[in-house]
Amino acid sequence: MRIFVVVGHKATTQPSFSLEDIPGTSGRLDILCRSVTAAFVLSHGIRKDVLVYLVLLGGETPKTIRLVGETLRHLNPDERTTAALLKKALAVEATPEWAMSTSGIFVRTGGLEKLLEDLKQRSVRLVYLREDGRDFRCLKDEPLEREMAFVLGDHTGMTAEEESLLASAGAEVVALGPTSLHADHCIVVTNWLLDTNAFMSDCG
Amino acid sequence: MRIFVVVGHKATTQPSFSLEDIPGTSGRLDILCRSVTAAFVLSHGIRKDVLVYLVLLGGETPKTIRLVGETLRHLNPDERTTAALLKKALAVEATPEWAMSTSGIFVRTGGLEKLLEDLKQRSVRLVYLREDGRDFRCLKDEPLEREMAFVLGDHTGMTAEEESLLASAGAEVVALGPTSLHADHCIVVTNWLLDTNAFMSDCG
Repeated sequence: MRIFVVVGHKATTQPSFSLEDIPGTSGRLDILCRSVTAAFVLSHGIRKDVLVYLVLLGGETPKTIRLVGETLRHLNPDERTTAALLKKALAVEATPEWAMSTSGIFVRTGGLEKLLEDLKQRSVRLVYLREDGRDFRCLKDEPLEREMAFVLGDHTGMTAEEESLLASAGAEVVALGPTSLHADHCIVVTNWLLDTNAFMSDCG
Repeated sequence: MRIFVVVGHKATTQPSFSLEDIPGTSGRLDILCRSVTAAFVLSHGIRKDVLVYLVLLGGETPKTIRLVGETLRHLNPDERTTAALLKKALAVEATPEWAMSTSGIFVRTGGLEKLLEDLKQRSVRLVYLREDGRDFRCLKDEPLEREMAFVLGDHTGMTAEEESLLASAGAEVVALGPTSLHADHCIVVTNWLLDTNAFMSDCG
């Protein structure tokens, strides 16, 4: 399983945003929509082996949305359709337990700290993608068979407190290259690196 | 300069499509919008060294839209904003000569054949991205300093006639990996490969 975690610092936790102006009314939920597409869509299908967590911090109470490739339905490659699915999920009454919205999409209250605890119990290898991290090729130091979770910030990066949480959770800090890319583009590249086993080659 | 050419076989040549339903009303112009974003946007800026040609074949007369990174303005990462820019370009009266729409965006009549003639005059190295092509690493066989143009199909691939045009123009057929990706994701990976010089390593 490939896991992607994207933190939206201003992303709304309410379904009241407008599909006619997603960036302007949702606290940049558009970034998370594109991340979802980048994580799941293939030319003719959905990646079943992917799990995405969107951590939404732009409300009074943080919420997390979980998207499960195995059962995900109704996901199209366009941004608006994804936003409409997230809107539905945000209309579900959230509690600390996961509640299903549409097929393969779940929501609960809670933010990054709670999610990192869950991932710890799952014994995943935690990789925090940051542009000044170690060269990605060095991920080959350990077998890649272990389940990996890649954590990404939105346009504002991560806060010092979040970085501290990630460090405590044992996250490796890894860079994909010299150019600072959007979160969704980082996910595309990561998926491609895993598809082609390029992590394993040419560590140098 | 990095050049990307995306062919939209059903993409509308008219500005009458709806921004509220881009995939359903524009002949999948959404694919081309995401390709534009993939080609140009960085975390904090626009790639100046990129040129994109969108070949729109979903009308009576084909049109081509050219986007020039050096002078491109008003491009945001969300799909709708890009669609609005293309809508404006399609409202410009198109002739066989380039006419400017907004800053850095130009439009003319004509399709792939005419564009390939232009690229030939520019002496670019033409690379047609297709999933059963040669391994991308073998692009290192020739110096990458030469200007490269990457040609991609939309969700329907390329027609036999287009493939024949590409072959006549000397296009190399190259694959990015074992997984069939959307055009915009191919552009993200290609940009990343050029950024990291990964084309040059590990041809094996």
